[in-house]
Amino acid sequence: MNETQAASLACLPVSLRDVEAAAGVLAGAIRQTSFDRSRTLSDITGAGVWLKFENLQFTATFKERGALNRLSALSVDERQRGVIACSAGNHAQGVAYHAARLKIPATIVVPLGTPTVKIENTRRHGATVIEGGATLEEAATLAADHGREQRLTFIHPYDDPLIIAGQGTIALEMLAAVPDLDVLVVPIGGGGLISGMAVAAKTLKPGIEIIGVQAALYPSMYNLVKGEQLPMRGDTLAEGIAVKAPGEITSEIVRRLVDDIVLVSEQQIEQALSLLIGIEKTVTEGAGAAGLAAILANQKRFRRRAIGLVLTGGNIDARLLAGVLTRQLAREGRLSQLRFDIVDRPGQLEAVVAVLSKTGANIVEVSHQRIFTDLPAKAVLLEVVIETRDRSHLASTIAALKAASIEVEVGEH
Amino acid sequence: MNETQAASLACLPVSLRDVEAAAGVLAGAIRQTSFDRSRTLSDITGAGVWLKFENLQFTATFKERGALNRLSALSVDERQRGVIACSAGNHAQGVAYHAARLKIPATIVVPLGTPTVKIENTRRHGATVIEGGATLEEAATLAADHGREQRLTFIHPYDDPLIIAGQGTIALEMLAAVPDLDVLVVPIGGGGLISGMAVAAKTLKPGIEIIGVQAALYPSMYNLVKGEQLPMRGDTLAEGIAVKAPGEITSEIVRRLVDDIVLVSEQQIEQALSLLIGIEKTVTEGAGAAGLAAILANQKRFRRRAIGLVLTGGNIDARLLAGVLTRQLAREGRLSQLRFDIVDRPGQLEAVVAVLSKTGANIVEVSHQRIFTDLPAKAVLLEVVIETRDRSHLASTIAALKAASIEVEVGEH
Repeated sequence: MNETQAASLACLPVSLRDVEAAAGVLAGAIRQTSFDRSRTLSDITGAGVWLKFENLQFTATFKERGALNRLSALSVDERQRGVIACSAGNHAQGVAYHAARLKIPATIVVPLGTPTVKIENTRRHGATVIEGGATLEEAATLAADHGREQRLTFIHPYDDPLIIAGQGTIALEMLAAVPDLDVLVVPIGGGGLISGMAVAAKTLKPGIEIIGVQAALYPSMYNLVKGEQLPMRGDTLAEGIAVKAPGEITSEIVRRLVDDIVLVSEQQIEQALSLLIGIEKTVTEGAGAAGLAAILANQKRFRRRAIGLVLTGGNIDARLLAGVLTRQLAREGRLSQLRFDIVDRPGQLEAVVAVLSKTGANIVEVSHQRIFTDLPAKAVLLEVVIETRDRSHLASTIAALKAASIEVEVGEH
Repeated sequence: MNETQAASLACLPVSLRDVEAAAGVLAGAIRQTSFDRSRTLSDITGAGVWLKFENLQFTATFKERGALNRLSALSVDERQRGVIACSAGNHAQGVAYHAARLKIPATIVVPLGTPTVKIENTRRHGATVIEGGATLEEAATLAADHGREQRLTFIHPYDDPLIIAGQGTIALEMLAAVPDLDVLVVPIGGGGLISGMAVAAKTLKPGIEIIGVQAALYPSMYNLVKGEQLPMRGDTLAEGIAVKAPGEITSEIVRRLVDDIVLVSEQQIEQALSLLIGIEKTVTEGAGAAGLAAILANQKRFRRRAIGLVLTGGNIDARLLAGVLTRQLAREGRLSQLRFDIVDRPGQLEAVVAVLSKTGANIVEVSHQRIFTDLPAKAVLLEVVIETRDRSHLASTIAALKAASIEVEVGEH
């Protein structure tokens, strides 16, 4: 920690004592998740990779920590009146679940078109769900207005010292288990998680480095802290950290205590998520895999260091997960699209299939394109999706096709 | 336990003491995996469901336990000569990994055509891999022959008292953590796992019930014990328990100590695997999900009982996993194929798309079938794959199509 950071710790709105107090509040009601060294990920990255399995919280997200800490601080009167929050995802789950446990009435505003599954998950915890607002921002305004009218306490997803202190308890658990950590790698959305963790970790261990991670499609805190204006756009797989406006308190803490923020591409997030499935047998959402993506993309920087990584959540849609796994197979050369220009007469497909069969490639899909090609009228574009054991099996399959004088083009991923 | 079972325990080739001795051998070298109550699976099934996460062993399979126990019993001379085993999967990993740890040379025979990924995983542990034999049976014969010639000790995957005792340590850990368990639900392939667990559990707690689970496509132990002749055929998702010939020792123990064997369908296994992903955020292979499948399919039988369930392994191919997740979505009414008989002229597709768009259904695939239909020449079969939020959203989408006088047929899953 440099001197500026040390000076900062004294004047921030959240302190180690707040985080320690939160740990007391959370004890017994929040799962103290495992923090395990991954031998294989350490081998792959050349670093010491320790994983904090917050995806195994009851609602599959660390958000419970901040929510419970915030709810526990309500006065008797506030508890009776109830709380309101806005979220289609993890924050909603965290608030609804712990409000129910504490018998506090909870209202959750979700944007229109939120999947019924998510609404049902929230309702199952006993929360009242209001659907309204075309976007998350509109829904948030609606929640604030409704809360004011009904005298409900608004629970902010990140820009609140009690929320920040609650999330910070993760750093306490990590450092208690592995005091030798050199660096913490933490995804940033609104900034609540990294703020709480940075306050706790930098106070306990001034020499520790704190690296934030954002999706390259949503570099909001990155822009704010670095004074850049990178565009924010598009659908990121890491929708849990796709936050347009970081908090005021959190951006102040990040500016003072976080050593760097790195950006990760969608492809890097997908690859990390697939590795966590394949190696750790654990399911993370996109945001939950962002930290590993950052390490994989910056291996030199992290080499030989003991890294504490938070797998922040595991709430990913099954269709999205299936798509990520399938695209990763394509990247690994295990699923490929081959294109052949063949002549439209009997025996042509057979020639291709015979070679594929001999090399042991498995045919997954076949289609003929006769109309929308720039080939001569008698030619056909044949597209075949094949499964091969690995990249070298793909290469030998293509070599065999060429050896049989069959022209082939391999689709790009 | 009935009297016959009590009498049996005395004369079986494996005893509680053997299992306890194995636990001593394994201590520190095998992960003592978590054994956690699943609140949500308990709610769903109306039972108390406790999960033993053997899918989180280093090689993602319980097979390490038996392999290590067997390897540790080798003489100095046998260790120097080395071992041989036959397996394309979990047993190979378990033997190769622990042989390397103990500096014992290991040879693994895998059937021809085994995916390079699996071969590489085995080689990475330092084992010599021999590819040979068109089937697992042929490869096993080859391994036995080669072992005899080279004076290597053959490590059987299940029919060996030391292997059985090693697997049995799982029951010790489960009962130590939760003495109140009423029943253990355990997948059966060759029978090594359930044999060891039954010996340990029935001795420690005579009243406990032991239920075996097999895939309905491979009811080998079921046939043997019940004197049935159900056919064995086909590719099961639970290839880890698709064993044609159960062991002699194991079938003797199963006959004497296992209270019942239930069969589960492929669809039940897929559903259980999907639930473990969605709820527990944990990846199991088909065999690893078979126990949960049995509970889901027999809820009355297990109601209100405390069940110990072994998630035996997590080694599933990514493409298979993606396929399971996608088919489960179809079963849940979230992915559906709609078929329309439309007239082949402009505007027809538009009418369908307009309704789908209005109901908020997401179009995933569109195809026109003009040739292979039994419709009149001017008609076209239009197939549209849509994604809906849930079954009720699908129902309202279909109602909206019918209200717009569009005939639609929903594909079966």
